[in-house]
Amino acid sequence: MRKIAVLTSGGDAPGMNGAIRAIVRVGIKRGFEVYGVYEGYKGLVAGNIKKLGYSDVSEILSKGGTILESSRLPSFKEDKVQEQAIHQLKQRGIDGLVVIGGDGSYKGALALSQKGIDCIAIPGTIDNDINGTDETIGFHTALYNIIDAVNKLRDTSSSHHRCFVVEVMGNHADNLAIYSAIACGSEIVITDKTEYDENKIIEELKICEEEYHKKHAIIIVSEKILDVEKLANRISEETGYSGRSIVLGHIQRGGSPVPEDRILASKMAEEAICLLEKRKSGLCICMKDNQIISKNIEEALIEKNENHDRLYQLFLDLA
Amino acid sequence: MRKIAVLTSGGDAPGMNGAIRAIVRVGIKRGFEVYGVYEGYKGLVAGNIKKLGYSDVSEILSKGGTILESSRLPSFKEDKVQEQAIHQLKQRGIDGLVVIGGDGSYKGALALSQKGIDCIAIPGTIDNDINGTDETIGFHTALYNIIDAVNKLRDTSSSHHRCFVVEVMGNHADNLAIYSAIACGSEIVITDKTEYDENKIIEELKICEEEYHKKHAIIIVSEKILDVEKLANRISEETGYSGRSIVLGHIQRGGSPVPEDRILASKMAEEAICLLEKRKSGLCICMKDNQIISKNIEEALIEKNENHDRLYQLFLDLA
Amino acid sequence: MRKIAVLTSGGDAPGMNGAIRAIVRVGIKRGFEVYGVYEGYKGLVAGNIKKLGYSDVSEILSKGGTILESSRLPSFKEDKVQEQAIHQLKQRGIDGLVVIGGDGSYKGALALSQKGIDCIAIPGTIDNDINGTDETIGFHTALYNIIDAVNKLRDTSSSHHRCFVVEVMGNHADNLAIYSAIACGSEIVITDKTEYDENKIIEELKICEEEYHKKHAIIIVSEKILDVEKLANRISEETGYSGRSIVLGHIQRGGSPVPEDRILASKMAEEAICLLEKRKSGLCICMKDNQIISKNIEEALIEKNENHDRLYQLFLDLA
Amino acid sequence: MRKIAVLTSGGDAPGMNGAIRAIVRVGIKRGFEVYGVYEGYKGLVAGNIKKLGYSDVSEILSKGGTILESSRLPSFKEDKVQEQAIHQLKQRGIDGLVVIGGDGSYKGALALSQKGIDCIAIPGTIDNDINGTDETIGFHTALYNIIDAVNKLRDTSSSHHRCFVVEVMGNHADNLAIYSAIACGSEIVITDKTEYDENKIIEELKICEEEYHKKHAIIIVSEKILDVEKLANRISEETGYSGRSIVLGHIQRGGSPVPEDRILASKMAEEAICLLEKRKSGLCICMKDNQIISKNIEEALIEKNENHDRLYQLFLDLA
Repeated sequence: MRKIAVLTSGGDAPGMNGAIRAIVRVGIKRGFEVYGVYEGYKGLVAGNIKKLGYSDVSEILSKGGTILESSRLPSFKEDKVQEQAIHQLKQRGIDGLVVIGGDGSYKGALALSQKGIDCIAIPGTIDNDINGTDETIGFHTALYNIIDAVNKLRDTSSSHHRCFVVEVMGNHADNLAIYSAIACGSEIVITDKTEYDENKIIEELKICEEEYHKKHAIIIVSEKILDVEKLANRISEETGYSGRSIVLGHIQRGGSPVPEDRILASKMAEEAICLLEKRKSGLCICMKDNQIISKNIEEALIEKNENHDRLYQLFLDLA
Repeated sequence: MRKIAVLTSGGDAPGMNGAIRAIVRVGIKRGFEVYGVYEGYKGLVAGNIKKLGYSDVSEILSKGGTILESSRLPSFKEDKVQEQAIHQLKQRGIDGLVVIGGDGSYKGALALSQKGIDCIAIPGTIDNDINGTDETIGFHTALYNIIDAVNKLRDTSSSHHRCFVVEVMGNHADNLAIYSAIACGSEIVITDKTEYDENKIIEELKICEEEYHKKHAIIIVSEKILDVEKLANRISEETGYSGRSIVLGHIQRGGSPVPEDRILASKMAEEAICLLEKRKSGLCICMKDNQIISKNIEEALIEKNENHDRLYQLFLDLA
Repeated sequence: MRKIAVLTSGGDAPGMNGAIRAIVRVGIKRGFEVYGVYEGYKGLVAGNIKKLGYSDVSEILSKGGTILESSRLPSFKEDKVQEQAIHQLKQRGIDGLVVIGGDGSYKGALALSQKGIDCIAIPGTIDNDINGTDETIGFHTALYNIIDAVNKLRDTSSSHHRCFVVEVMGNHADNLAIYSAIACGSEIVITDKTEYDENKIIEELKICEEEYHKKHAIIIVSEKILDVEKLANRISEETGYSGRSIVLGHIQRGGSPVPEDRILASKMAEEAICLLEKRKSGLCICMKDNQIISKNIEEALIEKNENHDRLYQLFLDLA
Repeated sequence: MRKIAVLTSGGDAPGMNGAIRAIVRVGIKRGFEVYGVYEGYKGLVAGNIKKLGYSDVSEILSKGGTILESSRLPSFKEDKVQEQAIHQLKQRGIDGLVVIGGDGSYKGALALSQKGIDCIAIPGTIDNDINGTDETIGFHTALYNIIDAVNKLRDTSSSHHRCFVVEVMGNHADNLAIYSAIACGSEIVITDKTEYDENKIIEELKICEEEYHKKHAIIIVSEKILDVEKLANRISEETGYSGRSIVLGHIQRGGSPVPEDRILASKMAEEAICLLEKRKSGLCICMKDNQIISKNIEEALIEKNENHDRLYQLFLDLA
């Protein structure tokens, strides 16, 4: 019986457990023996590997995070460290590996596949910043968490004539910012792909207040762009709104995965098993135009990102 | 200035308000004067029509239901009734109409377009049962509501060794059932496209209990197929589980729309405005392979439904 | 080292796990060895008893249901069956028992205490129908679940001019009905302590519609009083509202316990341990006038229920 | 017909709308004409006062914040400013006023009552820091929001072996911190009434990790005590956990009020109306030992706070 393993790597994302569950269950149904690697590449190198049965993945579909835990191991790009990982797998007779994680994790999978392990990568990150796929596991839940938080901020904002500057995650991608701005109906959105002119923002807020008589305003800002507290202070000083800031932080990552992430994870994991059955390697699973497909990891990583110009235009038309 | 109107028809769906908001705001930005028709075709015939401004659609994006209210008017298929609707529109100088609703509503839009009004239809229904589009507005929120409810049932089921038979909506389509079965990890799913053999269900439950030692089981059933209470009773009698049934009912329809429905509604409404700008008519907006497109209503309505065989196979592999 | 045990009995209630956790952790800190009895009295008689350590109750505080599972065992009122339970405890050197459950479970605890086991009862039921205590574990979460469900029904009701007849749990007590009616702002509430005159209900709905121009109406009904579907049908026939009914059922019991139930459970369990330390028996824990106290089970069971007249008057003043 | 008014003052709190609704509806039923003062004392002085009818408070029970808006007006302690407020009320024939807010707001109510307006104060603040009452409107919802956020942080913490330092609100009171620490089962809680020794915290975390093998740890900290980021950094350096910090901020204030806050608000408002009927003044409404009572504002403000020693001991026994 062929043996395969699964690991999660990089930042955790809600829905990873759904992918693990599907790898294990579909894997077993298709005749594999499935192993779980704990703590990502670190655990792989250390040999923290256990066999997983059908019931080991019961009740995990609705849980956030990853039961296999995750970690970052920068030294995994070193040849010697990769060899140690290969050794741990071969010693157990494991010749296939599914890696669930972000694009950093993909490179490790690619390296292992070049060294003889059948490796398939699955996109798991809330940032939706992996080239080649329209969606990543965890993105939908993070979006939900942001909208839920902004709903709460609106109540208190209206009561005090406030403008809230809300920092959301997304790494250098603007997906979480632009989608959540549309979904929560924010007044302004700032990402590193939109322009960012503080004077113009102040002007726009004055229009919100004086022309549209809005009782409050919400500004969604991607992380790593500006100091939200400083912008809030300037708003207090120069507009009729009382400015406040909040960094949503890790509450965006957690919580029970929404159905979209559970289903996406299940579909992608099933495809990964299909590819391992066919002895494919060095591929990543993508959701492209509503189809589950696979691509060479190398080619996927250099694909151009989706252009959000049209989404940003939609945002501007709605605000 | 050209005048257009928007109405919601058929069963309400979360996200309809996002579509109304986008029709009004994008419409105004593109130079239209926008009117709201209250209570669907009934209100159209009665002339229950009011002008909507930018601020009239503030704060509605996060609300379930439809601020324009909805209704069913079977007599709208009569020529005379349609003429009366046309009269109401023409009298106000309105020559474009966006209809948000299910496939019943599409037929009304088609009839009006054939009588000279530029009509565009947008798919709004939780059932996701409209041909030609992969997704309808409201489906994602209904799915979320079902998963949330089943989460609650699991706790109590595990404590009492229960099997819950859960009836979900979906009209004659099996979308809500099959997607929610995968997303909640149910043990069994019954739709009018799966087989349905009570003896086999009893057998499967015995395997759940005796082989997998599951403390509880969930069976998802599409509406209009079987009597969930009777099935629950038989389960109590013939298996080790105590059977219970629940009809989720209208709580599936309500609640603040999830981000996916808000974004889908905004995108579809923007496309509808684009088409009205180009003086198109008799078209419906579709989300197909992750692209917003439009089709002739007549052609869309006779398109074949998505085949769920692969999804059902995925379900079977996971259960 | 003294040995004590804990069991859950009767219908499960969210927060029972918090009580189990506190019994185990406070018990251990105060020098007891703590055992868990699985499946209530049935498991007690069968000897389904395991030692519980600090980590066995990690991560359960936020979970609904009861990890010890529950059951009903009508034969536990028989002397012979009780003796068997006593035997199971004595054989393991266990001389103290905490029973978490409803008033049926209290009688078992009383019987065991009379036969020489130190028994303390803790009120765990969503119905809040135990004499002697103002609050029971699980009531707050059930109330939350009802309000959440009614929130969802309101959206769809407003869109279709509907009157929803909502059946809530509560056994023969009217607590869930009356509190949820106030908390959700329902138009009408029907319990076995309010009057129930269908003609008057129809009259009131007509006033809601014609005088107050309400777009929808909500009627909260205690279980076991009337057929909600029939009432909904009559409403459709005789008022301007379209009547619909829903039986909320077991979704009221589930879900992560709200903070109030977690805190109440923790406080009550701590008090139970204090009493066992003092070798008390035959007592039940009560929350009375915001104080955690204890009473003789026999006396508590015959105390008069809280009189809800004032709450019902408040409801009438608000509706 | 006697005229009375209602205003909200200080920080907004979920449930204030329930109190406004009850003041209006119960007030009208008891024969008052009821006015709403917008923007707190600022609006009172400016004469921003409107009559409120039964339907003006429809659909607000489930909304966070306050529809009357709130503000802070430090100059309201000046005699001259108070006279202006009195003038605004007398000019409209209003001789009774209900003030919903924190203890700062109480002082304004007291001053107005001494100048001849019948004033009743209702405790509305998430901090639960008003002397004389066991509970304030908004506290339960804030507690719920904290627990919800910590639930999300736990998932991601377990996946990465993290210790999260979570700053919660509460002003100088420790209610939110200590109740949420018990309710979420945090490992450590720090308020200005507990001791705070960083070295001891590091020690405790090492025990969590090494003795109890906990995969993550949560530390709840009251605001205004320490720099959560700095503590998180020290945890990263000196323990096996990766330290992270989050300031929950204003998401604690928002959201639909939980049932407890809606019911508390309704009961307190009813009592305020009863007192105004009896021409009482200078009183505040309190929930004391589960009874709604009233006290002289002056006496209530100097009452000693609840002693949380026993709650803290419970926390320590559970952690």
